[in-house]
This record gives sequence, C-alpha cells and structure tokens, in this order.
Amino acid sequence: MKKFPARLASWEDIERWAKEGAWKVLEENWRPDVVVGLARGGWVAARLYCDYLGVKDLVSLKVEHWGVTATPDGKAKLKYGSSYDLGGKRVLIVDDISDTGESLTLAKKYVESRNPAEVRTATLLTIKGSRFKPDYYAEEIEWAWIVFPWNFVEDMINLVGNILEEREAVSTDEIVELFKELHGLDVSKGKLEEALRMAERRKIFKFREGKWLKA
Amino acid sequence: MKKFPARLASWEDIERWAKEGAWKVLEENWRPDVVVGLARGGWVAARLYCDYLGVKDLVSLKVEHWGVTATPDGKAKLKYGSSYDLGGKRVLIVDDISDTGESLTLAKKYVESRNPAEVRTATLLTIKGSRFKPDYYAEEIEWAWIVFPWNFVEDMINLVGNILEEREAVSTDEIVELFKELHGLDVSKGKLEEALRMAERRKIFKFREGKWLKA
Repeated sequence: MKKFPARLASWEDIERWAKEGAWKVLEENWRPDVVVGLARGGWVAARLYCDYLGVKDLVSLKVEHWGVTATPDGKAKLKYGSSYDLGGKRVLIVDDISDTGESLTLAKKYVESRNPAEVRTATLLTIKGSRFKPDYYAEEIEWAWIVFPWNFVEDMINLVGNILEEREAVSTDEIVELFKELHGLDVSKGKLEEALRMAERRKIFKFREGKWLKA
Repeated sequence: MKKFPARLASWEDIERWAKEGAWKVLEENWRPDVVVGLARGGWVAARLYCDYLGVKDLVSLKVEHWGVTATPDGKAKLKYGSSYDLGGKRVLIVDDISDTGESLTLAKKYVESRNPAEVRTATLLTIKGSRFKPDYYAEEIEWAWIVFPWNFVEDMINLVGNILEEREAVSTDEIVELFKELHGLDVSKGKLEEALRMAERRKIFKFREGKWLKA
C-alpha cells in the first residue's frame, strides 16, 4: 500500500494561516482591488483573505491539470474564468497550497494577459523546494498531503480507495490504524465514519458485515 | 445605539449545517453536475457542498444588491458571472443564508436563462418567514445577524462602527460588554482585538489611550 505523509488541517489552522498570510500583505501596505480564488482548493482561503484585507470583489478561476503523459507539454491550462474585468486592477490570486506551483503559475499568466495593474499571489502554505514561491503565505512545510477541512470527504474516499486496491474489505478501526501506519495521520473514527456514510450513499463504498468495500 | 440580535457561527456550526443540507440532497438521490457559489457569502458553504456531494465543478456568481431607494425596481442584479457553460447541467446554487431571498432569486433567474437541465438551491440556514425557501438547508432560524467565521473581521468593523457613531471612543472591554447588551453576542476579547488590529492597520480605527476610535 502506498506510504506517504499526510496531515490533517483543522479550521483553526486554516484561520491562523490565512491571518498570518494576510498580515504580511497588510504590513507591506499593499491592498488588492480584487481577490481571485482558484477553484476548488483556493476558495476558503480566498474568502478569508478578503475578510482580513477588506476586499469586496472576489472572483473565481479554474485551472485544469493534465498529467504529463496526457498533453504534449504537460502544462496546466485554464478551464473557465470570470466575466469580471481585471483591467487596471491590483489582483491577489489565492490558492490553498503551492506544491508544484502549476496552478498558480498558469493563473498568474492568465491574469497578466488581462491587463491588470499588478498581480501578486498568496496561499496558506508552501512546500519546501516548490518552484513557485507565492508572495504571501503562512508556513513553508516539508512535503505532505494536507487534508484540508473542505476536502475531507474526498480525501477519505481517495485514501480508503488506496487501501481497497490491495484489500477486499476493511473495518473503520482498521482504516484508522492503517492511516497511522501509512500516513502518520490521526483521524477520529466518528468523522471518518461520517465521511464513509456519505460515500456509501454516493455508491462509492458499501458496508457489509462490519467492513467497507468497493461498491 | 442600534439593538438587534446577532449570533456567532463557529466553523463547527458551518461544517454541521453544510453536512445536514448535503445529506438532504443525498437522501433524495439528486446529484448536481456543478455547484454555483454566490460571491462572497456563499463560497465556503459551496465548497463544502462540493466535498459532501462529490462535485468537481465549482463556479462563482456575484449578485449586486441595491437599496430599495437606489434603483427603480429595488431588485438585486447580476454583477459578474462565469464563462462556464451551464447548458444541460444540473445546477445547485449555494449561499450562506436566505433572508430576503433576493440573491438566490436573482441567481436562479440568471442560471435558468442559461438553459440548464435543472436548478436547485441550498444554504446553511434560512430565516423564518423568508419569501424564498431554498430546496436544501440545515436550519430555519428566527431573524438574527449571523457572524460567519469568514466575515468576522468585516462584521466586527461594522458593529464597532455602529458604536462609534454615538461614542467617540470605546475600549475593547466596553465593546465586549456592549455586544452582549446590544446583540446578545458573546465575542472573545482576543479574537475581537485581533480583528481590530487588522482594522487599525487598514486605517479604519485607531487606538489611543486604551480606546478605539475612528481613524
């Protein structure tokens, strides 16, 4: 089974990280006219940066990732944008985390093509050694898969899905143990069960004789 | 000073409300192709509905409110939208709360003009007696100003601003007391101070001799 570090982010972490990032913006006395949140991962961070910086205009951009083998150049591309006119505006692009930096790089390129006055970027976290360093962020961390609270169910589905690649069935207790072993991740049984019940309802997993298996 | 009820929503409230709303969608076996989050208030709820329902496409709409005196018809109007093609899609429009229902009504009208297969609406909360009842929501409440965690700083600025309409200066402790009296609102001194420090940095308030006043 795939072993990699994962880390659970709490809502309190999110709020603290966004505040720390926003303070760096405030301390430079820079003030964006508009915040561009990258869909879907950057939306909550973008909304918080708006609150802390007092920005009323909040728009969304969606960048599409393609696997390196799927496209000739292995680059991210824009999927859909906003009808908002970025011309002449000071723009802050916000995402949750900068890892490869693909999304932020492409989003920045796209925004720059719309004749803004200035473009800066902000995240909550950045990964050490990331090729793209945002202008503002709270913490630089060693690579780990961050389970953000707005992606908890999707991440649980993916992580349990990984386990079910190699086992036919697994109990909630076994998942809790395997998450510790494989990812150093401490997930409460109650929250995990809640997520798996949603996945069951969505016909992704089923529950038989005390164990979860693929539906 | 304006007296009205206000209520602090925690991140745990938000998560619980979104889960309750999303469960109602799941129980009807309805599944949207795309979630439309209303900017700025609906973004966090929209992101959570996406996670719980397993929706990958998330786009933003901004509806502009005008005061009844400001426009001939007193109606909300669309400010900016998304280049995403809603044609033939099952669309779930998400906002934080439905009060007058103006934003959701207009957003729905706009989305319907884009030839979707179906449009439904969801919020976290709805106000008793609201003319617009969303298809999905967690709780129906008596009218109160809800201080959402993504709007905390803006709300603190507005509520303290109200106090400073009638007093020249006010200490953090006095604000905490006045919030209880005027709004039945229990705000921690630490979080309030953090918000006011941001407002100070943004030159909205200043702090002199232990008291806050307009900058």
